[in-house]
Amino acid sequence: MSKKKEQDFVKEVTPMEEDFARWYTDIVLKTDMVDYSPVKGCMIIKPYGYGLWEEIVSALDKRLKETGHKNAYFPLLIPESYLEKEKDHFEGFAPEVLWVTHGGSEELTERLFIRPTSETIILPMYSKWVQSYRDLPLLINQWCNVVRWEKTTRPFLRTAEFLWQEGHTLHATAEEAEEETLKILEIYRELLEDELAIPVILGVKSEKEKFAGADRTYTMEAMMHDGKALQAGTSHNLGQNFAKMFDVMFLDRDGVRKHGWSTSWAITTRLIGGIIMTHGDNRGLKMPPRVAPIQVVILPIAFHKEGVLDKAYELKNELAKDFRVEIDSRDEYSAGWKFNYWEMKGVPIRLEVGPRDIANNQVMAVRRDTLEKFAIPMDELNERLGEILDDIHNNMFKTALEDREKKTFVSNDYEEIKDMMKENKGFIKIMWCGSEECEDKLKADTSATIRCIPLEKEKLGDKCAICGKEAKHMVVIGKAY
Amino acid sequence: MSKKKEQDFVKEVTPMEEDFARWYTDIVLKTDMVDYSPVKGCMIIKPYGYGLWEEIVSALDKRLKETGHKNAYFPLLIPESYLEKEKDHFEGFAPEVLWVTHGGSEELTERLFIRPTSETIILPMYSKWVQSYRDLPLLINQWCNVVRWEKTTRPFLRTAEFLWQEGHTLHATAEEAEEETLKILEIYRELLEDELAIPVILGVKSEKEKFAGADRTYTMEAMMHDGKALQAGTSHNLGQNFAKMFDVMFLDRDGVRKHGWSTSWAITTRLIGGIIMTHGDNRGLKMPPRVAPIQVVILPIAFHKEGVLDKAYELKNELAKDFRVEIDSRDEYSAGWKFNYWEMKGVPIRLEVGPRDIANNQVMAVRRDTLEKFAIPMDELNERLGEILDDIHNNMFKTALEDREKKTFVSNDYEEIKDMMKENKGFIKIMWCGSEECEDKLKADTSATIRCIPLEKEKLGDKCAICGKEAKHMVVIGKAY
Repeated sequence: MSKKKEQDFVKEVTPMEEDFARWYTDIVLKTDMVDYSPVKGCMIIKPYGYGLWEEIVSALDKRLKETGHKNAYFPLLIPESYLEKEKDHFEGFAPEVLWVTHGGSEELTERLFIRPTSETIILPMYSKWVQSYRDLPLLINQWCNVVRWEKTTRPFLRTAEFLWQEGHTLHATAEEAEEETLKILEIYRELLEDELAIPVILGVKSEKEKFAGADRTYTMEAMMHDGKALQAGTSHNLGQNFAKMFDVMFLDRDGVRKHGWSTSWAITTRLIGGIIMTHGDNRGLKMPPRVAPIQVVILPIAFHKEGVLDKAYELKNELAKDFRVEIDSRDEYSAGWKFNYWEMKGVPIRLEVGPRDIANNQVMAVRRDTLEKFAIPMDELNERLGEILDDIHNNMFKTALEDREKKTFVSNDYEEIKDMMKENKGFIKIMWCGSEECEDKLKADTSATIRCIPLEKEKLGDKCAICGKEAKHMVVIGKAY
Repeated sequence: MSKKKEQDFVKEVTPMEEDFARWYTDIVLKTDMVDYSPVKGCMIIKPYGYGLWEEIVSALDKRLKETGHKNAYFPLLIPESYLEKEKDHFEGFAPEVLWVTHGGSEELTERLFIRPTSETIILPMYSKWVQSYRDLPLLINQWCNVVRWEKTTRPFLRTAEFLWQEGHTLHATAEEAEEETLKILEIYRELLEDELAIPVILGVKSEKEKFAGADRTYTMEAMMHDGKALQAGTSHNLGQNFAKMFDVMFLDRDGVRKHGWSTSWAITTRLIGGIIMTHGDNRGLKMPPRVAPIQVVILPIAFHKEGVLDKAYELKNELAKDFRVEIDSRDEYSAGWKFNYWEMKGVPIRLEVGPRDIANNQVMAVRRDTLEKFAIPMDELNERLGEILDDIHNNMFKTALEDREKKTFVSNDYEEIKDMMKENKGFIKIMWCGSEECEDKLKADTSATIRCIPLEKEKLGDKCAICGKEAKHMVVIGKAY
C-alpha cells in the first residue's frame, strides 16, 4: 500500500487532539462496534462491540459466581405503585422512566414503567422469600437491559437503553452489608485493572452524588485520554432503606424479627466506552488482550502462492486452542489495507505468514500497543503469544496509569483550580470541608464535580480549597462523562 | 426419616395423573425455579431455573458460533411506524404488543412498542449495512427479552415477558436462505435431543400456523407427559418479504441490485417447561444431565463424626474439576429430608458419604432417573460419574421416546380421531387434503391442531381423514401448549 493510501485510511479518523468527541464517534462507527438506531438515544451493538461485551460479562460473571452470587431474572416491567414507595429513589428516577400505558389496543389498569434499575421489583420479592437468618445472605445478580430516557446520549457512554448487571444482596447485619459492598468494589477493581487494563481510583461518593435511596455509594473512577473522568462502576450500601419500604424482614438468631440490610451494584456497557477512551489512539482501538474479542489475527501474505493459505489455516486451528484468533484471507483487499484495518480494530497481535516466513519456519508478529515488529519461530508460537499478550496487558495498564498520573494535580488554591479546570487538564486533588454548598459552587464555577473521596486517604492541607473553612476530606475532582 | 414424613413431603406435590396442570405448578414453585411477580403474566426466574437456562444458552450459543453466527444487540423499543410496514406481521403482532407513550412526564412524539420479536428493527439496519454480495451471508443472533401481552399465562410455557435468542440472517439466494433455515432446525434438534434428552418431530407448519410474515415455518414438536404437544422451537424462511418491506438490497455478482432473502429463528425459556413436562415425575424434576445446573450433589452422612465433612469437601473440590457439583451440609435438616429435597430438584446423581463409606474407601450413589443405589470406589469416581451421567441422558431420552411412541396413533377415521382427542391420548398421524377448511374443522371439533407436516414423509392412505377428498400430506395432530 502506498504511503498516500495509508494516510487516506488513517485520516478518516479525526485526530483526538483536534476533537476528542469526534475521534470517539469516528472510532466506534469505523470499527463496527456500534450503530445508531431509529430510536432516539438507543444504540445497536454490532458483533464486534458485542463480542467485547461478552468477554467482559464472562470475566465478571466468573468472579461473581466464585464469590457465591447466583444469577436470576426479574421482570422488565414494574407497576407504577412500586416506584413511589421509596421517596428518594422515586425522585431520582421518575423523571427518566418510560411508561407503558397500553397492551394492544387496551389501556392498562395500572401503568407500568420499564426498569431503570430493579430495586423496586427485587426487594418486594425478597420480602416474600426471606423468613429467617438461615435464608441470608441472599446473593443475587441479574444480567439485563435497562432504560433511562436520557436527553443527551452517546454510544456506550450514555444511552437510553443499555446492558448491565445489577447485583442485589440482602444481609442480616449492617456490617455484612458493608462488607459485601466493599467486596464487590474490589471485584470491580480486579475486572477493570486486571482484565480491561484500566487503572481506577476507588472511593466514596459525596451525599449529593450518591445513588437515589442509598446510605453510601462506592465508586471506581477512571481517567479518559482527554482528562475527563468516567464513573466505571458503583456499589451501593442501601442500609435498611429499601427493606423498610418493602417490608423485607427476617427472624434473627435472637428470635426478633428485623429488617434486612441490602446492597446493589452495577457495571454497564459504558465500560466499552471506557476501554476506547483509555487505550485508543489516532490509528484506532487498542483492545485489552484479556477481553479482546479477537486476540490474534493472521494475515496470509502473497497467498496465491502455493501452501501459504494452507499453512495459515493450519496455524489458525493450532492457535485457536489457546486464543481467540481470526484469519483474514479476503482477496479484495491489499495487505497494506488490512494492516490498517486490523490496527483500527485494535487486535493486540497481528501475525503475517508469507512464503519467506514459511521457508524460515517463522511468522512475523506486530504488537498493536507498540507497533513493534519481530519474528517468532513457528514452534514457539503458542507459548510466546501468551507471554506477549500478558506483556501487552501490563504495558497498556502502565501507560494508562502514567497518563493518569501526569494529568493528576494537587491544589488548594481555588483560583488555580478554576484555571486548570478551564483548560480541562485532568483530575485535581483538593481538600474539602464536606458541605454541599462548596460542592455546588465548584460545579457552578468549573463544571467539575467531586468524583470521590478516595479510600486511600491523603492529607494535603487543613483548609477547604473552596471556602477556606476546616477541611474534612481530600477529594478528587474532575469533569465527568 | 420416617416413612410417614417422607410421604408427607412427596404428597405436597399433586400427582400428575390427578391434575397435570397443578402438578406442573407445584413442581416449578416447590423446586424454586420460578415465582409469580406482581406484574400480570410476568415471571421471576429464580436462580435454580436461571441456572438451567444458562446451561441451555451455553450449549446452543457454542453451536451457533461454530456455524459462523455472531451475537449482537438491537434496541428493545421500536417506533410504531416500523411495525406497520409488513402487513401480515403487523396483523399478527399488533394485538399483543405493549405501547410506550411517555418518557418521564412528557408524551413521546411517536409511540414506541416493546419488541415481541425484532424483524422490524433488524431488517432496516441490514438495509443500511449490506451493499454487495460480499457482505453476505449476514449471520446474526441476539439473546434478549421480548414481551407479548398474553391473556392466559403459565410459568415458562407462556409468559408476557420471556427470554430467548432470535437469529436473523440475510442471504443472496433463495436456496441459501432455505439451507440456513434447515441448518438451524438441525442445530435445534441437536440441542433438544443431545442436550435436553427431549425427542422431537421435525416438520413444516401449515400456512395457517406459520409465523406472521414468513414464507415457510419449520418447527420441532415435542410431546409432554400428558400427551400434549409443545412447539419447542421454530425456524422461519422469510423469503424476500421483509427485505422488500425494508429495502434490503445488495449488488450481486452479476452487477444487478437484488433484494436479499432472510430467515429468523428462535428458542425460548419455554424449553424449561418442556424439560419439566417431558422428564418430571411425582417425586419432582429430573434434570437432563448435560444441562443440569447441578449434576452431582454430595450429602455427608452423620457428619458430626470426625473426618466426614473434610472428606466430603475434599471430594467436592475434586469433582468440581469435571462436574457441576454442590454439597449439602445444612445441619437443620435430616438426611431423609435431604434425599427428598434433591430428588425433587431433579439432580441426576446423589452421592452419600458417611463414616462407613470412608472406611470402605467408597461412596454410595443414587441415580435420579432409576432411583438405583450402588457403591462406587473412591478412586474410580470421576470416570464412573461421567459414564453414569451419559447413561442417565440416554435412558431419559429413550424413556421419553418410548412414551411418545406409546401415545402416538394412526387413524383415518374421523369419528375415531374425535373420540381419541376427547380423551387426549396424544398425537395422531392422519392424512390431510391441505385445505384450511379441514384444518379449521379439526380444531373446532377436537381443539387439536396440525402440529406439523413431518419432514419424514409417510403415506398412510389416499384420502383426507377429515373431508375424504384426495390427501396431500401426512400430518401429526395434537392438542398444544
